[in-house]
Amino acid sequence: MRWNGWGDPAKAKDLPLAVRTLLPLLLGRVRRPAPAAELDAVRVAPPALTAEELDALRAVVGEAHVELSAEARLRHAGGRSTPDLLRRRAPEQLAPDAVVRPADHGEVLACLELAHARGIAVIPFGGGTSVVGALDPERGAHHAVVSLDLRRLTGLLALDELSGEAVLGAGTTGPEAEALLAAHGFELGHYPQSFRYATIGGFAAARSSGQNSAGYGRFDTMVTGLRVATPTGELELGRSPGSAAGPDLVRVFLGSEGIFGVITEVRLRVHPVPRERVFEAWTFPDFAAGAEGLRRVAQHGGGPTVIRLSDEAETAVSLAQLGKLGKALAKGASAVTVYEGDGIEERRARTSELLRAAAGTSSGAGAAADWLAGRFDGPYLRDALLDAGVFCETLETATTWSKLPALREAVERTLRDGLGAAGAKSYVMCHVSHIYPTGASLYFTVLAGIREEPLGVWERVKAEVNDAILAAGGTISHHHAVGRDHAPWLPSEIGETGIRILRAIKRELDPRAILNPGAVIAAEPAAHPASAPSREG
Amino acid sequence: MRWNGWGDPAKAKDLPLAVRTLLPLLLGRVRRPAPAAELDAVRVAPPALTAEELDALRAVVGEAHVELSAEARLRHAGGRSTPDLLRRRAPEQLAPDAVVRPADHGEVLACLELAHARGIAVIPFGGGTSVVGALDPERGAHHAVVSLDLRRLTGLLALDELSGEAVLGAGTTGPEAEALLAAHGFELGHYPQSFRYATIGGFAAARSSGQNSAGYGRFDTMVTGLRVATPTGELELGRSPGSAAGPDLVRVFLGSEGIFGVITEVRLRVHPVPRERVFEAWTFPDFAAGAEGLRRVAQHGGGPTVIRLSDEAETAVSLAQLGKLGKALAKGASAVTVYEGDGIEERRARTSELLRAAAGTSSGAGAAADWLAGRFDGPYLRDALLDAGVFCETLETATTWSKLPALREAVERTLRDGLGAAGAKSYVMCHVSHIYPTGASLYFTVLAGIREEPLGVWERVKAEVNDAILAAGGTISHHHAVGRDHAPWLPSEIGETGIRILRAIKRELDPRAILNPGAVIAAEPAAHPASAPSREG
Repeated sequence: MRWNGWGDPAKAKDLPLAVRTLLPLLLGRVRRPAPAAELDAVRVAPPALTAEELDALRAVVGEAHVELSAEARLRHAGGRSTPDLLRRRAPEQLAPDAVVRPADHGEVLACLELAHARGIAVIPFGGGTSVVGALDPERGAHHAVVSLDLRRLTGLLALDELSGEAVLGAGTTGPEAEALLAAHGFELGHYPQSFRYATIGGFAAARSSGQNSAGYGRFDTMVTGLRVATPTGELELGRSPGSAAGPDLVRVFLGSEGIFGVITEVRLRVHPVPRERVFEAWTFPDFAAGAEGLRRVAQHGGGPTVIRLSDEAETAVSLAQLGKLGKALAKGASAVTVYEGDGIEERRARTSELLRAAAGTSSGAGAAADWLAGRFDGPYLRDALLDAGVFCETLETATTWSKLPALREAVERTLRDGLGAAGAKSYVMCHVSHIYPTGASLYFTVLAGIREEPLGVWERVKAEVNDAILAAGGTISHHHAVGRDHAPWLPSEIGETGIRILRAIKRELDPRAILNPGAVIAAEPAAHPASAPSREG
Repeated sequence: MRWNGWGDPAKAKDLPLAVRTLLPLLLGRVRRPAPAAELDAVRVAPPALTAEELDALRAVVGEAHVELSAEARLRHAGGRSTPDLLRRRAPEQLAPDAVVRPADHGEVLACLELAHARGIAVIPFGGGTSVVGALDPERGAHHAVVSLDLRRLTGLLALDELSGEAVLGAGTTGPEAEALLAAHGFELGHYPQSFRYATIGGFAAARSSGQNSAGYGRFDTMVTGLRVATPTGELELGRSPGSAAGPDLVRVFLGSEGIFGVITEVRLRVHPVPRERVFEAWTFPDFAAGAEGLRRVAQHGGGPTVIRLSDEAETAVSLAQLGKLGKALAKGASAVTVYEGDGIEERRARTSELLRAAAGTSSGAGAAADWLAGRFDGPYLRDALLDAGVFCETLETATTWSKLPALREAVERTLRDGLGAAGAKSYVMCHVSHIYPTGASLYFTVLAGIREEPLGVWERVKAEVNDAILAAGGTISHHHAVGRDHAPWLPSEIGETGIRILRAIKRELDPRAILNPGAVIAAEPAAHPASAPSREG
């Protein structure tokens, strides 16, 4: 992964000609940013850990696995949101004081116990792909913070072929997991945009959702068990795919984003590698017709593996990227369906009937295959846009089918007005990529020509969008998670008593608040100084 | 509901002739129990609430809705397990000090705040159908305990037809819910054995699973939102069918069995009333073949609405009940499939192919239709057996497909050996009625001729079975819940840190431990007397 951008430097893309042609039409003239700082020229503060603390960490993981170089620290200084990438251009940057790489559950547990004893903050780090500020090197009330890099916890630890269950190390990346499973003829089938770099533990901690969610479910539906290390104890959860043995504690850790403990192993439902794959693309007169088609598919069990609907704005840009500029000027929404696994023909027939009844027209396999070929390229395009001076960011939400149109309209209006007030022209694209019987997600890609202070402008506009999302009955995040960026809005979503529950769990498991301070919930004020353990190092 | 047995007294059944013929063959001579005490002859302690406390309760719910009669108290003295029914025969019984009937969420909240202020224990009560001791009138550390009867919280509070979501009052029974929804053309489709009396709130608090779970999922998959009242605050949860806004707090309350708060309203996924229903019954050479068939159906998306497999012992008794004694002496396992909703023919064809490949033979629609007609009669038969001196009880668990045979064998061996050691012959039947891609449930019905002290014998044998279940990798309960009966085994299932999480949530929401004391988790020892609020009344 590039230290200050997405992915493999060899795969960095220039903007396609058609996009470069479209941009001035959409956004007006934009200003190229100043060149980014080179890695070896960036200034970071010296590590704030004492020699004794470093020795204690080395005693747990081995000397080779405690890194203090500026490069290692900067590679663990945050995630991959656009604000993260803009921060990575600065000449002086915040970074964790060290990077620590435990080998397995036992070493993770020992690291957490050590950090708890000495008051060192810990940021669990998997693929480094968070786009909501879940990886910021925040110390909280402590004197130092380390990045706990989990990539050595990689591997297929168990496979129960009859039951279709696999146990994977939390540091296993998406492609590593699929390769390990494929060697036995199995697949997990979880393909978010971050797939190439993100980890199994990250998917669990952030409750992600992948492109094949229509077929296999979002990640939290794939999880049947967890192993977790916390600063004050450990857990192994999940004996059965269905249980009434009290509240499901696996769900306490799914979405906990590193604030309660570190997920070290994940037990997952897997399925045989599909032998066949069928594509079909669709066009709709407009987004509303397409959404109605997707609703019927969700409620009548159409059964596609992938189904995604792009609005008119996104359809136009996708066509432009493919060089079909003429078609891009036509109106209409578009959808992609993919079928894998059992009963492909029946599912395709059923889904097609439902989409046709919603005014959908099949446009054959080609566009859908194109989508599949380029489906992990989005973040590279975002980087190319940033280099060209175009601000590009994404945000996402979800709600019920009946609230979906008003939610979409509220987000788009707030973006347009907010960016406009900052003097920026904008272009907003929207798609639905996750459907449920009762509702669906909305994913927005925003392009804007923000001339001055893009970080400050975006922070203000995003805050207005978050308010609008909650007011319209949407969730603050469908699959990007809460992190630090969305934490101020969580109280509105789950209420004061909901926040109290999260704090109570954290107080119990992490009483010194060393884990990911500031993520999900704001640090608790020291209300009872006589009884609270000291938060000084 | 009968005060000391199941259901409608007018529907009480005598044992079918075939069963009465079989019983001596299976169990030897059994001793008829002493006649049960008449309701008006049972002695209960006088209510332990003060006049001032009673007035305070009446001020919240109205005088008519605070009941002190012995009859009302005895009707709320427990659930409907066999030990419960045996306790209801005794001449002196424990009962709550009063029955309180709030009208709505606001009155529930006020009752809890009142009970919290005055130190009165509260047992939330829906349909009274718990079979795991979740309704015992336990006072915990307090001087009095009231039964909080939620049946007035009944009704369809909202219906979003486009999204397929309904909001129901927690006190709505199964049949009430279906009637209210059917008036709009919708169905919930949750049919556990307790359906006729149990409530929506009870299904949520206990994480139940119904006979149509293959089609519509267990109850916790139907829930999209909750409204909850606690002694220290309230919550409204669930904005979207999918979300990454932190851990899913709905899952904290599903399965909380009244220990964290009282669920007052439930938002649920509903579907159009199915227009058609198709039955098909199957026979298999043995249970193992049938289980293999069910596994394939679960993993290859066969799609039945109902699928259940009875082992050889249960098949024989079912046939005997239908008067087919000759067939009952034949060997073999049997299954029932039912299809409702969309795409019935394709689903039936797919499922049938999968079952045939596992050595299943179709036996037509008749036996499956018979099952449907009698599917809520089991508890009446249990009462008739008890009257005849036959001990009859059920227990259930679940695990992965690969562990299923050994789990079944461990349970049956432990039952046989344990009851045999007490001098009782036994007959154990087993079925699978809930399937998942990675595993399935096991439901055991036990008939035994226990001559002396049936409660004591069963408690000992059940404890041995619980140990065996956990040792074999099963969950302590798939859908009956934890209650008080299974609470001693929960620490083995979720571990010490898991118990700490539950305690931490309870301390935050219910610091005086008034809610359902002793259910799910044992009462916490007062470890820090200086800081804990007084538990004296």
